[in-house]
Amino acid sequence: MRLENISWEEFSHLDPEAKAPFLQQQGRPFHVLIAQQFDRHQLDSIGSLATQIRFIAKTRPGMDFLRDLLCGKRAMLYFTQPSTRTFLSFCAACQILGLGIGEVRDTATSSEFKGESQEDSVRTFSSFFDLIIMRTKEPGLAERMAWVLSTSERPVPIINAGSGRDQHPTQALLDIYTLQRSFERVGGIDGKTVVFVGDLARGRTVRSLALLLTKYHDVKQCFVAPAPFQIGRDILAVLEKTGVEYELSEDFEGMLTKADAVYMTRVQDEWDAHAGESARVDVSRYAFTVAHLRLLKEHAIIMHPFPRRHEISPEVDRDPRAVYWRQMRNGMWVRTALIVTIFGLDSQVREYYARHLQPGSCL
Amino acid sequence: MRLENISWEEFSHLDPEAKAPFLQQQGRPFHVLIAQQFDRHQLDSIGSLATQIRFIAKTRPGMDFLRDLLCGKRAMLYFTQPSTRTFLSFCAACQILGLGIGEVRDTATSSEFKGESQEDSVRTFSSFFDLIIMRTKEPGLAERMAWVLSTSERPVPIINAGSGRDQHPTQALLDIYTLQRSFERVGGIDGKTVVFVGDLARGRTVRSLALLLTKYHDVKQCFVAPAPFQIGRDILAVLEKTGVEYELSEDFEGMLTKADAVYMTRVQDEWDAHAGESARVDVSRYAFTVAHLRLLKEHAIIMHPFPRRHEISPEVDRDPRAVYWRQMRNGMWVRTALIVTIFGLDSQVREYYARHLQPGSCL
Amino acid sequence: MRLENISWEEFSHLDPEAKAPFLQQQGRPFHVLIAQQFDRHQLDSIGSLATQIRFIAKTRPGMDFLRDLLCGKRAMLYFTQPSTRTFLSFCAACQILGLGIGEVRDTATSSEFKGESQEDSVRTFSSFFDLIIMRTKEPGLAERMAWVLSTSERPVPIINAGSGRDQHPTQALLDIYTLQRSFERVGGIDGKTVVFVGDLARGRTVRSLALLLTKYHDVKQCFVAPAPFQIGRDILAVLEKTGVEYELSEDFEGMLTKADAVYMTRVQDEWDAHAGESARVDVSRYAFTVAHLRLLKEHAIIMHPFPRRHEISPEVDRDPRAVYWRQMRNGMWVRTALIVTIFGLDSQVREYYARHLQPGSCL
Repeated sequence: MRLENISWEEFSHLDPEAKAPFLQQQGRPFHVLIAQQFDRHQLDSIGSLATQIRFIAKTRPGMDFLRDLLCGKRAMLYFTQPSTRTFLSFCAACQILGLGIGEVRDTATSSEFKGESQEDSVRTFSSFFDLIIMRTKEPGLAERMAWVLSTSERPVPIINAGSGRDQHPTQALLDIYTLQRSFERVGGIDGKTVVFVGDLARGRTVRSLALLLTKYHDVKQCFVAPAPFQIGRDILAVLEKTGVEYELSEDFEGMLTKADAVYMTRVQDEWDAHAGESARVDVSRYAFTVAHLRLLKEHAIIMHPFPRRHEISPEVDRDPRAVYWRQMRNGMWVRTALIVTIFGLDSQVREYYARHLQPGSCL
Repeated sequence: MRLENISWEEFSHLDPEAKAPFLQQQGRPFHVLIAQQFDRHQLDSIGSLATQIRFIAKTRPGMDFLRDLLCGKRAMLYFTQPSTRTFLSFCAACQILGLGIGEVRDTATSSEFKGESQEDSVRTFSSFFDLIIMRTKEPGLAERMAWVLSTSERPVPIINAGSGRDQHPTQALLDIYTLQRSFERVGGIDGKTVVFVGDLARGRTVRSLALLLTKYHDVKQCFVAPAPFQIGRDILAVLEKTGVEYELSEDFEGMLTKADAVYMTRVQDEWDAHAGESARVDVSRYAFTVAHLRLLKEHAIIMHPFPRRHEISPEVDRDPRAVYWRQMRNGMWVRTALIVTIFGLDSQVREYYARHLQPGSCL
Repeated sequence: MRLENISWEEFSHLDPEAKAPFLQQQGRPFHVLIAQQFDRHQLDSIGSLATQIRFIAKTRPGMDFLRDLLCGKRAMLYFTQPSTRTFLSFCAACQILGLGIGEVRDTATSSEFKGESQEDSVRTFSSFFDLIIMRTKEPGLAERMAWVLSTSERPVPIINAGSGRDQHPTQALLDIYTLQRSFERVGGIDGKTVVFVGDLARGRTVRSLALLLTKYHDVKQCFVAPAPFQIGRDILAVLEKTGVEYELSEDFEGMLTKADAVYMTRVQDEWDAHAGESARVDVSRYAFTVAHLRLLKEHAIIMHPFPRRHEISPEVDRDPRAVYWRQMRNGMWVRTALIVTIFGLDSQVREYYARHLQPGSCL
């Protein structure tokens, strides 16, 4: 099942899971467009690869090995929706692998494209670059562009680095990786309770992570939010269909005691239909302070996709269960692992790791 | 004849061809400022070098060889007139050769320069970089800056990456290279018929290419446009003076049957004196659709400098005679070849090619 | 004395010289935040290292050696206050050392950070980069961020690349280095007379340099400006306290005859409280023209931190005593030397120099 052999109309109407095989080549992800395209095996594989890369990068010969992998290739960072954090994270991942970088970040720079179709713009990027990492406001644009390129002479891979409220698959990957790392000595993700807190209605990271967690066994999902910010029915429908236990609640403190992972989020007021809409919702009861730390299990973790506002007070940062800074840095490693996988270099990395680092010692 | 030995007043009043020797060092281009500075020998040489680089870059050792050529040197991309396509193309060319890149792209970033003379700005760039690639709205600015640097302690080369309606010499080079490649098995550019279509009055790429084609033998030039967009008298005067056969026409379809190369262009309405001026000219008859493909000779080619609007329908892209996407990628190779030539590394590249690739087999 | 062991309140109220030990690790600068943190030994050491790097970079093996030093590490250029010159200079310095570069230059790009604390933004940068070079309008911000990072898991070094009217320590370093180089055959900086001219009230480069010169012996400082632009009382108080001979004057030409170094500056009208304020001050008598060259001593030098407006006429550039263009390029070398020092690689560079270049021959 190859993307160039299906029409855009057919492809765009497929269920997310049904799209997955079209986004792969030889069993590994080629285009990375939607969180749901990853099966559990791939999630585990990218996670273990990210860890190996993290350890390889600790030595100078290791850094040299990594930088040599894609030296001579070039990545295009096409970010018409601003995002410093995701941009810098991908930027670092590319540099770790020796990829040259070209960037189009603001709309002024790309003003020449006025009157040009988006298809032509993206084909232009594919003329000069070997990988396109794109972030846009327009849902589905990355998918359409992947399809367009698949029928061209230079079908380079596309990574969706965030498309509006729609999808942010690499954020979902780094969230999963953070759970994997945090729970690796306590039986992994299976059987854990994940408590989502905040603006769950509009947080695409929450939505993507909730869906990906259905690929693990017996994970209980709890959604703690004031009614206007509660998680969407569409997500709950998927949870019900896949037999996942879940709970809706407004009792923040009560839920904290049950959590293995607390996933805090900020109010996404940039999506307000009317200015000030969100400000009328009282979220003061859903902020994590040092007082809440005593409610948490000893091995529990606190996550946040950033940027944060007042959901977590900075004093909490010093608690070892606050893993959100590590979570952010995980994004760099997981994106590096993803690019390695896309270019089919994962076995080279695993061989290097097996040869040069004590196998198993750090995993 | 060296640029530092002539006054700016004298130099700026020379004919384009008379400027050429001042822009060279040891017989090869040093500053690249105007299309007409290239003689046929140089055009052929840059073209064959671009082809060799293209093949060298197909292997990893070849990419490493290329990246080593200018590793440790730095190029400044000074683009105050936005142009994503040309920018990315130069960016890729620099990365292929290992050149570090610094960039000033928007006017906000360079606001510090307020009150500073342009001479001081460019001398600043020359303090930190070994090559300046500049794109500006101001005609002749690159020439003046090249002259200014020639009298300074760091006379680094300047490449004009587009100066207003005036000149875009590297676009002319990639157009010539595309014709060279396309006709290499059918006797080269000599004797061919090139049909220019669209807004010929204001398209600097058309003007430059028309002038460069006079350096080939027996090339017939046809200009197909509605009267307000017809090619300028100054160009026709040059063609007459150099004995080039040409034809003006409004018969798009009739001309297609005679063409070896059809060079389509968009309406350049950004140069309208009054808003909406161009919109009053009917160009609907000058658009290339799939229906026109049957009129074309078998070995003919369709070119376009991009961005395109409605001059060529996307369905035409699939025809093998549509070479405009390859033409765009040629820009990257020809710019790489040009930089190699400027730094006097062309013989190193030719030796590598002779030693490692089957000589002649791909040319 | 380590930054993480002192509270922000305590640290921020220390005298500049008292802050110095907290900004060092193992006797060398770690964070570079204020000009006064450098003692004379460090100034001399950075200067001699800059000279060695300058010579090493003249050969290809030397460039390769330098680029290898920090290859695999990454620097963040966080420039919310635009400055093309300082930006490009740091950019070149990073590339000389093989540092990968990430950048946030305009406020639009970093708009995602709205609602995020500056602490979180800078901790984000520290997640992906090994060095943060920041330029902001806000005085003291770099200091606060250095303190914040010191208490985090990734206490990466911060270089202040200019903070409002407050500090611009690397400019002060390049000024000192220019004086060192210019006077190396005439007994060094000690005993010389430095004449500052122009807007001395608001030029942070003048203020920093005046303070650093107190670390040399018997340097006389002369301040030549119209009354509204005369140097601040706070600087004079330091000079008095440290026993430095100084003179205030409005006699530009008379002072030129006494000068070993003339430090020209432009009017800093961007700091005007009311628009047009500066324009009412007559500075026409404080501009350096070719006519003034005959007043200068034979070994005297003319400096300028750039950008220049009308303070120095371009014809003066040709006089060998006009060192301001070399001064600018010195900025690149001194910043390279500074980064080398921060990462503790200075002895590696000195060993390379001792082994491969004639020791002493060029110093």
